[in-house]
Amino acid sequence: MSDSEGWDGDLRDTGLALKHDREWDYELDRVADAVAERDADTVALQFPEGLKRRAAGVADDLDELLPEKVRIYISGEANFGACDLDTDLMRRSDVFVHFGHSPMVEGGDVIYVPLFSNVDVEPILEEAVGHLEGDEVGLVTTAQHMNKFEMMQSFLEDRGFTVHTRRGDERLTHEGQVLGCNYASAEVPADQVLYVGGGGFHPSGLAMDNPEKRVVIADPVNNVVKPASAEKFIKQRYAAIHSAMDAETWGVIAGTKIGQRRHGIAETIVAENDDAYLITLDEITPDHLRNFGLDAYVNTACPRITTDDGPQFDQPLLTPQEYRIAVGEEPMDALEFDTFEGTW
Amino acid sequence: MSDSEGWDGDLRDTGLALKHDREWDYELDRVADAVAERDADTVALQFPEGLKRRAAGVADDLDELLPEKVRIYISGEANFGACDLDTDLMRRSDVFVHFGHSPMVEGGDVIYVPLFSNVDVEPILEEAVGHLEGDEVGLVTTAQHMNKFEMMQSFLEDRGFTVHTRRGDERLTHEGQVLGCNYASAEVPADQVLYVGGGGFHPSGLAMDNPEKRVVIADPVNNVVKPASAEKFIKQRYAAIHSAMDAETWGVIAGTKIGQRRHGIAETIVAENDDAYLITLDEITPDHLRNFGLDAYVNTACPRITTDDGPQFDQPLLTPQEYRIAVGEEPMDALEFDTFEGTW
Repeated sequence: MSDSEGWDGDLRDTGLALKHDREWDYELDRVADAVAERDADTVALQFPEGLKRRAAGVADDLDELLPEKVRIYISGEANFGACDLDTDLMRRSDVFVHFGHSPMVEGGDVIYVPLFSNVDVEPILEEAVGHLEGDEVGLVTTAQHMNKFEMMQSFLEDRGFTVHTRRGDERLTHEGQVLGCNYASAEVPADQVLYVGGGGFHPSGLAMDNPEKRVVIADPVNNVVKPASAEKFIKQRYAAIHSAMDAETWGVIAGTKIGQRRHGIAETIVAENDDAYLITLDEITPDHLRNFGLDAYVNTACPRITTDDGPQFDQPLLTPQEYRIAVGEEPMDALEFDTFEGTW
Repeated sequence: MSDSEGWDGDLRDTGLALKHDREWDYELDRVADAVAERDADTVALQFPEGLKRRAAGVADDLDELLPEKVRIYISGEANFGACDLDTDLMRRSDVFVHFGHSPMVEGGDVIYVPLFSNVDVEPILEEAVGHLEGDEVGLVTTAQHMNKFEMMQSFLEDRGFTVHTRRGDERLTHEGQVLGCNYASAEVPADQVLYVGGGGFHPSGLAMDNPEKRVVIADPVNNVVKPASAEKFIKQRYAAIHSAMDAETWGVIAGTKIGQRRHGIAETIVAENDDAYLITLDEITPDHLRNFGLDAYVNTACPRITTDDGPQFDQPLLTPQEYRIAVGEEPMDALEFDTFEGTW
């Protein structure tokens, strides 16, 4: 069981990438059917960062299935999750396809293509069994491996485990699913949780949200079993809180992405602190905040930008709870991972 | 007359910055009147990059003029011109204020606060007169110095010059005004043009768009008179075209900002080239294009991103005309600066 400390906070490290040469099923027939049904003139495609390199090829394949008149648009906006839905392009196109993420709400006019992984998870589960303790285990995975969730469950039960699963909350489409910002599916009566999936992004959040639980990663993409640890992140968070304690002015970011809105939290902070200013922003990057020159920032949008990208910002970037700790409203040891609940 | 070659392509170098400690008139009484008139609950403020550092102070000053219930939002989106209008925040707020840029269209529900410079331009005009040749001169300036345009004109006429001015096209609010993407106001019957204004951003575009004209900069902000030259830029553009000539795949960027849409140009390129793909994008940065991994890109949105930021991108970034040169549709010596005409 190798060490997990190599995780350096990379939002792109989700296992949803091409390096292992998996073949995804883009379900282009389903897209072509929708184009025909709506007699569409334009179809827009949105890919996660890890699959953008396939965008041109998928557009070529789709083009062959479509009438001459149909124009294909590709979204260039940053895309790390279903919360990054390109709503502007959605409004401008007759058919809008979002690849690789599961929907956060039912309905809407988006075709979600799940891109289930065809990686065999049995060998890595076999190895993982030797690293589990006792006979109770929670089981979670990502949207990419959801098609094998029942198989994983049966596999573990056949090995004598009592497997605890749940669908966390309505932000999640599936039982056992986790998102970078939501680990409610791991809130099960077991002291250990097995995460089956690629990359370090999801299990690092799982460990941050569950410091009292043992988290074991079974990664069928990189073929490795290892523990997930939140230690490095917790140190970074305390460091960020400490460096923000002297801040005299605060920027409080209200995210405008459809899946990242917690404006009520932002407005409450600004209403209670005369030296806090509400800044609205879609994509949150160091460049966007640099010129404001405020002493510290609170990010009420995607918590993973705070925890994973935070150290790249010029000034401390805190979660709402970390802000309350920094200004003395909560004790230091109350620190919790910031999660995002609900649909939008 | 010092050398102008120090200009390195910085979109922020517009003279609209705080380093010279000018006092701008933010016209907050006018904003407060609009809030009262509309019985507004929310007012949103958008500042150019160079003035974002004053956002918190302006919000404080405005807050004192407003009823308790009114909430103030500050736009965090990148803002280099009137084309960068934060239309999303505009829709979400009862009163929307855009500082420092003149409107590109009449009407709309935006309060534009021009932020006229209070820098005295007479001393620099006095110095500039010694650098002009003959007795005919074109005169242009930026929105910041528009309040002194008639004075500049009279000053030069008093020195015996015939001063040629015009309002370029409907993208410009004022006679004699230039934008980073539009120098139509310099299309006058004179072999030399005097640019009065701060920074290197505008005159470098003026020189690129007018290679046959002598361009003299009279910069009252940095207190310097110097020639503007397009030489370095022209070399960079030829280098970019050459490095794109081997490209097998092209990304063609259709900008989604309200003031940067030339989608027809983008769609024509994609329709005529099977290896070109249309990518929609709001803010165009190297990070947004990196993961597509295409060989070269054509930017139909803001031309200054191409000419000024272009070298920072991983792959060649060309203007639409540069693309036509790279694929052999136009001769190399046809190269012209890419300008943006019309209102939106």
